[in-house]
Amino acid sequence: MNQTMPHWLSKQAELNPYKIAIETNAKSLTFLELKNESQVFAKKLASFGVKQHARVAVLSANHLDMVIAIHALSYLNAVVVLLNTRLSKQELHYQLEQSEATFLILTEGLKDEKNLAFQKQKTFQDVRNQHEVDASLSTHIDLNVPFTMMFTSGTTGLPKGVIHTYGNHWWSAIGSVLNLGLTEKDKWLLMLPMFHVGGLSILIRSVIYGMSVYLLEKYDAQFVYRAIVQKRITILSVVTLMLRELLEEMGKEELPSYVRCLLLGGGSVPDDLLQQVREKNIPLFQSYGLTETSSQIVTLSKEDALEKLGSAGKPLFPAEIKIANQNHEGVGEIWVKGPMVMDGYIKDETANKLAFENGWFKTGDIGYLDSEGFLYVVDRRSDLIISGGENIYPSEVENKILQLEYVHEAAVVGKKDDDWGQVPVAFVVRESDQLSEKTIQDYLKDVLATYKIPKKIIFRESLPKNASNKIMRHQLKKQLGEHS
Amino acid sequence: MNQTMPHWLSKQAELNPYKIAIETNAKSLTFLELKNESQVFAKKLASFGVKQHARVAVLSANHLDMVIAIHALSYLNAVVVLLNTRLSKQELHYQLEQSEATFLILTEGLKDEKNLAFQKQKTFQDVRNQHEVDASLSTHIDLNVPFTMMFTSGTTGLPKGVIHTYGNHWWSAIGSVLNLGLTEKDKWLLMLPMFHVGGLSILIRSVIYGMSVYLLEKYDAQFVYRAIVQKRITILSVVTLMLRELLEEMGKEELPSYVRCLLLGGGSVPDDLLQQVREKNIPLFQSYGLTETSSQIVTLSKEDALEKLGSAGKPLFPAEIKIANQNHEGVGEIWVKGPMVMDGYIKDETANKLAFENGWFKTGDIGYLDSEGFLYVVDRRSDLIISGGENIYPSEVENKILQLEYVHEAAVVGKKDDDWGQVPVAFVVRESDQLSEKTIQDYLKDVLATYKIPKKIIFRESLPKNASNKIMRHQLKKQLGEHS
Repeated sequence: MNQTMPHWLSKQAELNPYKIAIETNAKSLTFLELKNESQVFAKKLASFGVKQHARVAVLSANHLDMVIAIHALSYLNAVVVLLNTRLSKQELHYQLEQSEATFLILTEGLKDEKNLAFQKQKTFQDVRNQHEVDASLSTHIDLNVPFTMMFTSGTTGLPKGVIHTYGNHWWSAIGSVLNLGLTEKDKWLLMLPMFHVGGLSILIRSVIYGMSVYLLEKYDAQFVYRAIVQKRITILSVVTLMLRELLEEMGKEELPSYVRCLLLGGGSVPDDLLQQVREKNIPLFQSYGLTETSSQIVTLSKEDALEKLGSAGKPLFPAEIKIANQNHEGVGEIWVKGPMVMDGYIKDETANKLAFENGWFKTGDIGYLDSEGFLYVVDRRSDLIISGGENIYPSEVENKILQLEYVHEAAVVGKKDDDWGQVPVAFVVRESDQLSEKTIQDYLKDVLATYKIPKKIIFRESLPKNASNKIMRHQLKKQLGEHS
Repeated sequence: MNQTMPHWLSKQAELNPYKIAIETNAKSLTFLELKNESQVFAKKLASFGVKQHARVAVLSANHLDMVIAIHALSYLNAVVVLLNTRLSKQELHYQLEQSEATFLILTEGLKDEKNLAFQKQKTFQDVRNQHEVDASLSTHIDLNVPFTMMFTSGTTGLPKGVIHTYGNHWWSAIGSVLNLGLTEKDKWLLMLPMFHVGGLSILIRSVIYGMSVYLLEKYDAQFVYRAIVQKRITILSVVTLMLRELLEEMGKEELPSYVRCLLLGGGSVPDDLLQQVREKNIPLFQSYGLTETSSQIVTLSKEDALEKLGSAGKPLFPAEIKIANQNHEGVGEIWVKGPMVMDGYIKDETANKLAFENGWFKTGDIGYLDSEGFLYVVDRRSDLIISGGENIYPSEVENKILQLEYVHEAAVVGKKDDDWGQVPVAFVVRESDQLSEKTIQDYLKDVLATYKIPKKIIFRESLPKNASNKIMRHQLKKQLGEHS
C-alpha cells in the first residue's frame, strides 16, 4: 500500500488555486497564495538552519502567521511542536525540553510576556525579515512521518508529548468527512486554539478537503454569531462555553439555514443547554475525542441527538471502540482503535505500556455502550476537570501546591460552573495558619496556567482516604456539590 | 500505519442501520438488511465449500442478487471474479481459466445461454436453496487483500486479469468523495454494469459513504429520466451513449435541481452533446480512468467544464499524473500514480514490466497537460475503440479474423458513430472470394462478444504498412473518415 501522496497544500493549490483557503477579519488567502506564502516562510526558516526532522516549537494564539508557520514547517518536513499560550513559564520550559525543540517561533507579545530562557527563539517578524535560502521543500507527504506534537497531561498529571503523524491527521479528516459530508459551499469557523488538536484539525481538514476556513483570531462571543451570518459559515467547532455564549448572543434569532453542523467537543452539555439547542433546532453534533485520537473519534449526529440524549455517538468510519473491564451494568473503561490514534507518547515507555493493549488505546475514561452501540461517557479519566474546553489534571495542580511550605495534604476537584462547565477547587490540610488562600494562589500563578489555578482553596483538618490511604477525590467532589 | 478497518458493510449496518443501502424497482434493503442478507448468502456459499482466498466468478447482469453475492464473498474473504455477460462462451472459458476461479455463481438465464463447460457452477437460486453453515465471516477488512478481479484487454489484445485490493477501491472512493463531496441526501443511480469497474465502484462507495444507491437492473433509456425524478437521484454515472439518450428522453425538460453530478466516463463527448449539456445547465463531470485505476483517476469539475472544453480534468486527491516521452508540443504518454492504481496484472510478468516504471503506471494513452495542469486525452492506447462504454482492442478482433481460412491480412479500426461513439470496422485482404462479410461475421459470433464484431467488413487488395511492415491502422481510420 502506497503511504505517500502529494503534499496536501500543494495539491489544493493545483486543484483549487483560486478558492479561498483561509480568511480572517483582515485578510484572505487562496490555496495558491497560502502555498506560496508558506513556501516563502519555509525558505526563510531554512536560513535560520531549520532542517527536516527538526522539532520546532510554535507559541502563538490563533493568527494567520501561525497557519503559515505550520504549513511552512510541513514543507521543511520538520515537526511542529504546538505550545499552549496559557501555560506558565515553568510549564513552557518543561515542554520545550521534553519535546527536544531546537527552535521556537513566537509572537512579539508572547516573547515579552513569557521571557523564556530559550536560545533559538525568533518572532514571526524576525523570520519575515530574514532572507530566503534555496531549501528543498517537500513535494510529497509520507503518512508515517510525524507532523505535529502537543502535550496532554494524561492520567499521571505529568504532561506527555503526543506525536501526530500525517497519517493520524489524514485518517481523522477522512473519518470526519465520511460522517459529516462535504459540499463546495462549506466554510468552517476556526475559533478553538490551534495549539489544541480540536483547532488544528480544522486547519488540516481545510487542505485535505479544499475547504475554506474562517479564522477568528481572537475568540469573542459577540463576534461569533455575526461571523456566522456575515461569512456564511456552514460548520463550526465549539466547546460548551462557546455554545452557551453563542445562544445568549443569538437571543431570539435563529441560525441561518446554511449552518449545517456545530461540532461540539471537550465535555458534555448541561441539560438546560440541550433544551435550548432543541428549541432552536440547532444542528448540534456532540463528540468524544482526545489529543491522543487526533480530535473526535466518536460523534453523535443531529438525527440521533434527540433520541440519544447525553450520548457521544458512534465511532467514526475507520475507528472502533470497546468497553473493557465492564461491571455488571456494562460500565467500564473506554478503549479505542483506529488509524487516527497516536502511536504512543514520546519518551515515556511506562506510560505507553499502560496505555496500549493489543492495539487498543485505553483512554482511562469510563463509559458504556447502549444496545444500539451508542457511547455514553460516564466519567472522564482520573477525575479530569474540563474548564472552558481546557483539560486540567488534579494531580498536576496538587503536585504544585504540595511544594509550598506548610502544606500537609492537597486534593483538587472540579466544581460545576455555569460558564466554564467546571472550575478547579482545592482542599488543603495545612500545618500553619500562615498559609492563606492568597499565598497559594499567588504562588501558583508563577508555575501554572491561570485556568488551572483553583478558584477557591478550602482548608480542612483532614481529607477522606480509602483503605490504601489514597485521597478519595470523589467524596470531596460530592461534599462540594452538597455545600455549594 | 494500520491497514485494517471494520468491514465496510458491517460498519454501515452499525452507523446507519435503517438507512436505505440499495433500492431497485422491486425492493429496497437497509444497510442492516443488506448486511444480514449478505451474511446469510455467505453462509450458504460456505456450505458449497467456498473458502477464504478462493476465486469465485460471478456472471450476472446488474441485479440485487449480484450485489448480495459480492458482499457475501467479501464476508468470506474470497476474491470476486467479475465476468462480462456479453462475452462469448470461448472468452468466458478463457477468463475462468486465467482467473483460476474454483466456483461460479450465475443467473439461470445465463447458465442456459452460455452453457459453460465449468463444473462448479451454481445459480443464485441454487445458493438460496442451500442450507447455511456456520462459517467464520470477516469482521475486518485488510486494505492489502484482493477483493475483486476483472479482465481488461490491455494493449496486446489478450485479456489480462486486474486485481483490485480493498485498498484500491477504498482510495478510489476517498479520492472521489474529496472531489465530488457528499451529502446525506445523496443517492447514486447505478446503471453501468457492475462487472465493469465504473459500476462496481458505485456499489463500493455506497458502503464506504453510507450512501443510498438506486440500482437500475436493466438499462433502459426511457426509465432513466423517470428514475431520476421519481427516486430523487443526486448523482449518476454515465457513458456518452447514456447521456445522449437521457437528453433525448428529457426533451424540453430540465434536470431537477437536486441532481448535482453526472459523472461521465469511457471516452470523450462529441461537441454537439456538450453544447446541449451547456444549454440545459447539466452538472457534467467528465473523467478519465481505466480498469487498472479502479475507475476515475482524473476528473473535470462542472466549474471548469466550460473553460476547459474537451479536458478530462485534474488528478483526484491522492493521485498523480505525468506526461512521459513528450514530443515538442508536450504530447506524450499518460502515466499515473496513486493508491487506487492496481499492483499489476495477474500471471503476466511481461505485461507488468512494460506497464510500470518507478511506481508509475504507463496507461498507453496519449495526452498532454495544459499550463494549468488540466489533462487532455488525445488518443486512447493502441487504437482502442470505445463503443457504448465497452472497450474493444483491435488486435483481439484481428487475431480472431486471422484464424479464418482465406484471410491474408486484417486490421480493425473504430468508425465514428452517433449512437455508440464508435463501432468496429474491419479491413481484410482475402485470398479467395469465397470469404464473404457474412462468413466472417457469423464465425466471430461464436468467439467474440457481439459488440466486438465489426459492423462492416471492407475488402482490400492490400493494407498500408509502415517501414517495419506494421499495418498503419491510423491511415485506414482516416480513409474511413473520408469515405463515410
